[in-house]
Amino acid sequence: VHETRLAPDSVERGEYRHYMQKEIHEQPVAVEKTLSGRIHQGKVLSAAFGERAEAAFEHVRAVQIVACGTSYHAGKVARYWFEALAGLPCSVEVASEFRYRRQVVQPGTLFVTISQSGETADTLAALKAAKELGYAHTLAICNVPESSIVRESDSCLMTRAGPEIGVASTKAFTTQLTALLLLVLALGRRHALAAEQEAKIVRELETLPAQIRHVLQLEDEIAAWAELFGEKHHALYLGRGAQYPVAMEGALKLKEISYIHAEAYPAGELKHGPLALIDNEMPVVAVAPNNELLEKLKSNLQEVQARGGELYVFADAEAPIENVPGVRILRVAETDEVVAPIVYSVPLQLLAYHVALIKGTDVDQPRNLAKSVTVE
Amino acid sequence: VHETRLAPDSVERGEYRHYMQKEIHEQPVAVEKTLSGRIHQGKVLSAAFGERAEAAFEHVRAVQIVACGTSYHAGKVARYWFEALAGLPCSVEVASEFRYRRQVVQPGTLFVTISQSGETADTLAALKAAKELGYAHTLAICNVPESSIVRESDSCLMTRAGPEIGVASTKAFTTQLTALLLLVLALGRRHALAAEQEAKIVRELETLPAQIRHVLQLEDEIAAWAELFGEKHHALYLGRGAQYPVAMEGALKLKEISYIHAEAYPAGELKHGPLALIDNEMPVVAVAPNNELLEKLKSNLQEVQARGGELYVFADAEAPIENVPGVRILRVAETDEVVAPIVYSVPLQLLAYHVALIKGTDVDQPRNLAKSVTVE
Repeated sequence: VHETRLAPDSVERGEYRHYMQKEIHEQPVAVEKTLSGRIHQGKVLSAAFGERAEAAFEHVRAVQIVACGTSYHAGKVARYWFEALAGLPCSVEVASEFRYRRQVVQPGTLFVTISQSGETADTLAALKAAKELGYAHTLAICNVPESSIVRESDSCLMTRAGPEIGVASTKAFTTQLTALLLLVLALGRRHALAAEQEAKIVRELETLPAQIRHVLQLEDEIAAWAELFGEKHHALYLGRGAQYPVAMEGALKLKEISYIHAEAYPAGELKHGPLALIDNEMPVVAVAPNNELLEKLKSNLQEVQARGGELYVFADAEAPIENVPGVRILRVAETDEVVAPIVYSVPLQLLAYHVALIKGTDVDQPRNLAKSVTVE
Repeated sequence: VHETRLAPDSVERGEYRHYMQKEIHEQPVAVEKTLSGRIHQGKVLSAAFGERAEAAFEHVRAVQIVACGTSYHAGKVARYWFEALAGLPCSVEVASEFRYRRQVVQPGTLFVTISQSGETADTLAALKAAKELGYAHTLAICNVPESSIVRESDSCLMTRAGPEIGVASTKAFTTQLTALLLLVLALGRRHALAAEQEAKIVRELETLPAQIRHVLQLEDEIAAWAELFGEKHHALYLGRGAQYPVAMEGALKLKEISYIHAEAYPAGELKHGPLALIDNEMPVVAVAPNNELLEKLKSNLQEVQARGGELYVFADAEAPIENVPGVRILRVAETDEVVAPIVYSVPLQLLAYHVALIKGTDVDQPRNLAKSVTVE
């Protein structure tokens, strides 16, 4: 497989105000490249992972994912896919935690690292430790072919996002999710995933670039929402299932570039603590809730509307819900449940970006952060 | 086993200003009761769990814990113990997430619920779902003997904390941790835990009430720290390993009763995003770091000290670290690593309590929250 590389000086912002905005808009093409030559006639091609990985996949009975930051959130989404689609138990852990605790390794466990740069110090250290621990195979999901993590791994699946300049990761995240879904399908067909399910998900992947183009058209509407966040110092992001890590990633974007203290919770935990915080200073952002969840959220929110609690919902176009006082809805085109976490990541990136514009922060170089965390 | 019960009208605040303060100070006795009759001569007694559980324990090869809120944090601590001491793989999940996703149940998995009231709606629903899913045995860690969760479980281990009136859970948490450690020992001796290790940990458990009494004497010092939090709207709590969930629980206490937006992170993730938030408005609380971690934290903090970032460290009495500008140290008596999460929970409760006093909130009845979340 030939990996596309661009020299750093070929990277230009072009019509975009910031690299981050450009990279958000590059996602349809980046995802397309990540899929290119890897799916065909309703199947993930074995060649995507190489012979060595394919041989190892025969014996995989569980998956351990290790990553940091945004890549960790991608791993958390993949966990839902592995368990729900492939029927494979999957555990996801922050690299700096994984490497410092005693592990119980079950036979047949695939060890997966995720890193944009392939140089993340804690992830690399965890990978080196894992190789001593008896994992069946190590596989890297990475954006830089000649990186340390790729070199140290038994096999790899490159994300082909192209160079990412903005410190807050965007296209690296959605291409990681895309690559992980390919891995879920490749392993799933050896376990709980039926051929027709695989074919259906492959069709969804084929339309994914178009779906992302479609949500990018919401930018003006999202920019209008962003105005309402300009004076806020807090936000709560809620999701459920595979959309909970999407909420985590959305909150992280807002933290990183707008310096708003955004925190994500699985929606059902609201009543177990964070509800005490909600007032007109803390907007609540809910990601793609199903209707059942939305009903529960609305009843929770009623309790705090007297204090000015406001709900911002990213919802399916067809969801039978209305804008009511205290509840704002942004309609995302209807999408399949499996790829929905990839689609819904994009409007959350746009929200963070436009809030940062209003705050006037240094979007591409937020304070205190480095693009690639090569120290521990 | 005879369970102690107090009629509600026997519960008086006595010398204490709030139930929460009283319940914090009851922890030495509550932990003592939870241990009473369950350990003897360096061993956890089989009778603690009952014959049925003991028979089931023979076949346990993995543990799935499900809980909400504070109880979920107790489960997260227990996971470290299960893996590091017992050598048993353990997964912990929020009940509202567990019940809505497809599960992959591995043979020989013990299903453990944790709930103070035994009526937590999502936990009860998850338990009922689990009984259909083929778990080897269901065990409840609970404070109310006649509760729904206890009735629905194959066996139980009561926490004997006595009635807890304050909405923000304190003694329920530390007795849950104590009960969970008994479970880890009972299962661990069938796996990776040597008899002498068990005996050593049992000795630590025997001294735990005295250790908690000792940290309670830090109350005045902690109250002085609390003055520095009175004007803050944010806080970041950091921990590593089994102290990361302790940091989560400390942050939740501050959220619940002082309405300060406190968020916990595993310390190694600081550079992957939250570092952007830190300034003089966001104090950083670090829980029981080892020296290596503290060195890393200090180097991270150097980058933000120009913006007034301040570090509050709860550290071992013997840790060779100094108060330097921007770093405050509160010395906790040296304690064994295994029981340290229980001991360090207490000063974090006291910090939240004294901050709430300064804020003038309704400590025992914080806004929007209910003691027992019996709705979904």
